[in-house]
Amino acid sequence: MKQKKNVTFNDIAKYTNFSKTTISRYFNNPDSLTLENQEIIAKALVDLDYKENKVARILASGNTEFIGIIIPNLFLHYYAEMLNQILATYESFGYKFLVFVGNGQEETERRYIEELLAYKIEGLIILSHTIPSKELSELRIPIVTIEREDKYVCSVNTDNYMGGYQATSLLASHNCDVIFHINYINSPANPDVPAYGRVQGFLDFCEEHHLKHELILKQMGNTYESIKNYLSDILEDITKRYSGLKKGLFISNDTQANVLVNLLVRKYGKFPDDFLLVGFDNSPISQEAVIPISTVGQQIDKLAYEAVKLLVEQMNERKKRRPAPLTEPVHKVVTPILLRRETTEM
Amino acid sequence: MKQKKNVTFNDIAKYTNFSKTTISRYFNNPDSLTLENQEIIAKALVDLDYKENKVARILASGNTEFIGIIIPNLFLHYYAEMLNQILATYESFGYKFLVFVGNGQEETERRYIEELLAYKIEGLIILSHTIPSKELSELRIPIVTIEREDKYVCSVNTDNYMGGYQATSLLASHNCDVIFHINYINSPANPDVPAYGRVQGFLDFCEEHHLKHELILKQMGNTYESIKNYLSDILEDITKRYSGLKKGLFISNDTQANVLVNLLVRKYGKFPDDFLLVGFDNSPISQEAVIPISTVGQQIDKLAYEAVKLLVEQMNERKKRRPAPLTEPVHKVVTPILLRRETTEM
Repeated sequence: MKQKKNVTFNDIAKYTNFSKTTISRYFNNPDSLTLENQEIIAKALVDLDYKENKVARILASGNTEFIGIIIPNLFLHYYAEMLNQILATYESFGYKFLVFVGNGQEETERRYIEELLAYKIEGLIILSHTIPSKELSELRIPIVTIEREDKYVCSVNTDNYMGGYQATSLLASHNCDVIFHINYINSPANPDVPAYGRVQGFLDFCEEHHLKHELILKQMGNTYESIKNYLSDILEDITKRYSGLKKGLFISNDTQANVLVNLLVRKYGKFPDDFLLVGFDNSPISQEAVIPISTVGQQIDKLAYEAVKLLVEQMNERKKRRPAPLTEPVHKVVTPILLRRETTEM
Repeated sequence: MKQKKNVTFNDIAKYTNFSKTTISRYFNNPDSLTLENQEIIAKALVDLDYKENKVARILASGNTEFIGIIIPNLFLHYYAEMLNQILATYESFGYKFLVFVGNGQEETERRYIEELLAYKIEGLIILSHTIPSKELSELRIPIVTIEREDKYVCSVNTDNYMGGYQATSLLASHNCDVIFHINYINSPANPDVPAYGRVQGFLDFCEEHHLKHELILKQMGNTYESIKNYLSDILEDITKRYSGLKKGLFISNDTQANVLVNLLVRKYGKFPDDFLLVGFDNSPISQEAVIPISTVGQQIDKLAYEAVKLLVEQMNERKKRRPAPLTEPVHKVVTPILLRRETTEM
């Protein structure tokens, strides 16, 4: 692996008989040269096998074209696919991404943000939940969050209320005798978290249509075993209390919905006739489950695109001679899509 | 969002009454200053609210501390978890990662590599399969690949041969009458691809132990539906041909193993007694399947760590006054781990 010597502006100047200033103008303001001279320099770059050094250009222009990302994990498909879609916006906007996985460690994430700032990122996308938006807003760089508490910063979120409303309406259309919503949020009184909208959509639909319903709030941990134990208890309880009745379950994510499907199929040898089930997210597991699961699909590609777009708008504003920064954070919502599969096909 | 003026070395020099050279020495070679002077400067940085500008330091040192990553997709859990583990090595090695998702587009990936080189990455990790290792080796920067053709570059791979051997041995220990290996590779005659080792491990074990066996090679596409159609045909065929016999299936990934479990459970209402099944990868689906699937687990954390370590060794070598580059590519292997679950518990 022999290292080639880097070709410098000096080398290009000598080769073309132009001044170094002219070469510099070619890179930073090519239209200030005649087309003919531009072509002479372009040809020289090929002849000399010149490799662009963006680090050097950054120092001249101050624009790194870097966006930082802090993502909680890549274990959940939702985050992996969101990162995939954010990275794919390179084709539209040209920004490069420096990615850190926080794993829910608040202090670690602060350290990562410091590191990103040292690399002069132009903007920051935050998906992790640890650092309050008030603190993020004090970083004084353009920020967009996705699906987390966002009071003091710009954000893009799924219309969770609409999702909850759609899911409940699908269960109601099948004439369930009682409808349940199972959610992992701490408390129904935390409307700062976007996912809370799912609870409100469920409650509003049931109350507007005078439907018998129950809200079950339970933190179930992150392991398959722990989720299985909690859901097994819940299933036993409602099977006993509503025996012989048609039960509609809206559950707040597909991982948990799949655990329910497995419990039911292992017990009955098939998906039982007196249960209907709707999940949330349209994760791959909802399709790959033994009984494909009806679910509320988040449009992850749109969420990612809108987030980068909103960030780029803020970054571009800052580059103007007289920037007019936002006076209030902008919050965008993306509509979810209901997918009907076998768990609501009675 | 008012932008603060950047604090320069000049400002620090004025504030401390040291020369700019002394300030520069503090950042680049602090031990050349007395402890007392180091403390004076450290205090000044706090007083002045100095923010480190790594971009400026890069230009001084030439070391960006960037590693580029080209990953085929983030849809498969294997790649998402590999990226997660690679990013986590920041805590051990301090390198930052610029990530691109190639989606199997050879020309796009070439473009991404150009972009990464323009940002003066110090090394490159390649997981995608599109660009031949010969071409990669000609980039003349340190490269490590993971689980792909690697003839001309350094690599870290799972010991796929050992994995195939282990899986077949588990099926044999349950006295199967016939053992199958279903794999998606093109041809058994492509030993350049690491996953080919799984086939060889299967064949060698069966031949050494004189077991009745069949090798089924079939490209099944990437969608759940297309995989389901192919596996449904295969299942029907072997059920007919080996009726009443105990059939052991070793299948080359957990996504496909899960499809098989679903087909069997939907047909029989449970996992049938005359089938045994072992997958590969230890993806989450292997645990979350309606019948938890026995599988050969790749140690993704170790693969990622070893890959970055091998890359860092090459990068450090280049920084020496008299680098001694590798004369031959280094290929490391990581042992897989067999996980016994319900599909081999007859």
